[in-house]
Amino acid sequence: MSAAYSVLITGANRGIGLELVRQITQTHRELTKVFACCRDPHGAKAQELRALAEKYPDIIMVLQMDVADPKSIHQAAVQVGSVVGNAGLNLIINNAAVMFRCSVLESTAEQLTSCFNTNVVGILLVIQEFLPYLRAAAKAHGKAGMSCCKAAVINVSTLGSSIQLTNDRYDEFKLVPYRTSKAALNMLSMCASLELQKDEVLCVLLHPGWVRTDMGGPNGEMDVKESVEAMLKVMKSMNEKDTGALLDYRGRNIPW
Amino acid sequence: MSAAYSVLITGANRGIGLELVRQITQTHRELTKVFACCRDPHGAKAQELRALAEKYPDIIMVLQMDVADPKSIHQAAVQVGSVVGNAGLNLIINNAAVMFRCSVLESTAEQLTSCFNTNVVGILLVIQEFLPYLRAAAKAHGKAGMSCCKAAVINVSTLGSSIQLTNDRYDEFKLVPYRTSKAALNMLSMCASLELQKDEVLCVLLHPGWVRTDMGGPNGEMDVKESVEAMLKVMKSMNEKDTGALLDYRGRNIPW
Repeated sequence: MSAAYSVLITGANRGIGLELVRQITQTHRELTKVFACCRDPHGAKAQELRALAEKYPDIIMVLQMDVADPKSIHQAAVQVGSVVGNAGLNLIINNAAVMFRCSVLESTAEQLTSCFNTNVVGILLVIQEFLPYLRAAAKAHGKAGMSCCKAAVINVSTLGSSIQLTNDRYDEFKLVPYRTSKAALNMLSMCASLELQKDEVLCVLLHPGWVRTDMGGPNGEMDVKESVEAMLKVMKSMNEKDTGALLDYRGRNIPW
Repeated sequence: MSAAYSVLITGANRGIGLELVRQITQTHRELTKVFACCRDPHGAKAQELRALAEKYPDIIMVLQMDVADPKSIHQAAVQVGSVVGNAGLNLIINNAAVMFRCSVLESTAEQLTSCFNTNVVGILLVIQEFLPYLRAAAKAHGKAGMSCCKAAVINVSTLGSSIQLTNDRYDEFKLVPYRTSKAALNMLSMCASLELQKDEVLCVLLHPGWVRTDMGGPNGEMDVKESVEAMLKVMKSMNEKDTGALLDYRGRNIPW
C-alpha cells in the first residue's frame, strides 16, 4: 500500500456503513482519508458518525451524499477530488441501499422504482462521477494487478440477489423490490468490471451476511462487527481474479 | 386444451409481438381470443396489426396498453375481464420492452430507469392486474399440472440477461440499461413463479434468439418467423418442471 490511501463509503451513518468507517479508520495505519457519505450528516441518525469523525478529525471527512440525488453525488465527487488530488481515490464501498419487505403480489411500482433508483442507478452515478479518481489511484499505485489497496469498487449486494438460490428461503425473505434491484446491480457490476479492467480497477460484489442492523432486523445471524471484520478480510485478499464476482463475507462465490 | 382459449400479448404491433399474434391466430383452431396490446393501436406503427385484426375479427382484439402507464394496464385488464368471463385468460406473453445500446460509462440515469420501468415494473403490474383471470383459467381448465394451455405467464427475456455469460460478447452487446433491467426481470419472474405455483400458473422466461427486428437490428441471426415458430414449440412443451426457468428458443436452460 502506498502512503496515501483513501476510501469512500456510502450510507456511512449507521449499520454496516458506520462499522466500515470505524474499522477502516482504526486498522489502517497509513491511511489518509475516509470519506463517510450519508444523506443527512447533520441529522439525528448521523450522531454516531459525527462523534466518530470528531475523534479522528484528520482521517474521517463526513460528506453529504444521497445516492438517489445525482446532484449530491456530483458535489461530493468535486469535494473528494479537491482533497485527494493526484493520489486519487483507492476504494469505493457502495453500501447505501433501501429495502422493502413485500411479495410480487404486494409490491408497488413505487417500491420497485425506489429500490432500483437507490440501489442501482445511484451506484452507476457514483462509479461515473468517481472513476477519474479511481483511475488516478490505479496510476499512482504503479504496480500491475488489481486490489482494494490500489483501486477498487466494492458493491454491497446480498445472498438474496441470487436468482438460483431464491427458492431456498423465499417465504422468509420475499423482499421483491430489493431482490430485483440487487439482481440488476449484479449485472451492472459485472458490466462495470469488464469496462474497468483496462484501468486496473477492481469491481466486486460482496454479500455482508445477514446482519443485525436496522435493515437486517433483530434476527440476523451475526453482529455488524463480525460482518465487517469478515468483509475487510475478504477485501484484503481480493485480486484481479475476483473482478466481476459475487462473494460472500467468507470469500466464497455465490451463484447468480 | 379446453374449447375457450385466450392469449394476451404486449408490444403486439411489430417484431416478435406481431408475429406471435399472427402465428397463434393461424395455428390455434380452438382459440377464442388473442388480445393484441400496443401503445398506440391507431398509430402508423400499428398498421400491420390492424390489417391482421381485420382479417380475423372474431379472434384478434386490439387493445391500447402502454406498460409504462399503470392506468392503461388496468383499463386493458377490465376490458379483457369482461370478454373472457369465467373461462379466464390462459396465457400472457410479456413481450413489450425497450432497449438502449450503451456502456456503463455512457448510460444515463434516465436510460436505466426507462428500461426498468417498461421491462420490469410494467411486467409486475401486468401480472398483478391479470392474475385473477389467470387463476380463473387454471380453475376452469381443471386438470392438475401447469402448461401454456392452462394458465401461464411467459416473460420475454434475453441471453443478454445472463450475468454469467456477460463476458462472452460484451463488446458487441453493451446494452447496459437493457441488461440490468432484464436481470431484474429474471429475478421478478423467479419470485412470481414461486408465488403463482399454488395457483398452478406457469411462469417462464424465454429468450427469442437474436432476431432481425427493429430492436434486434439487421445483423440478427434469425428472422422473426423462425424465432416465433421455435418459441411456440418450446411453449407447447412446457410443464410445471419449467416454472421459474430461463429457456432459449430451443428449450435449453440459460444460466443466470
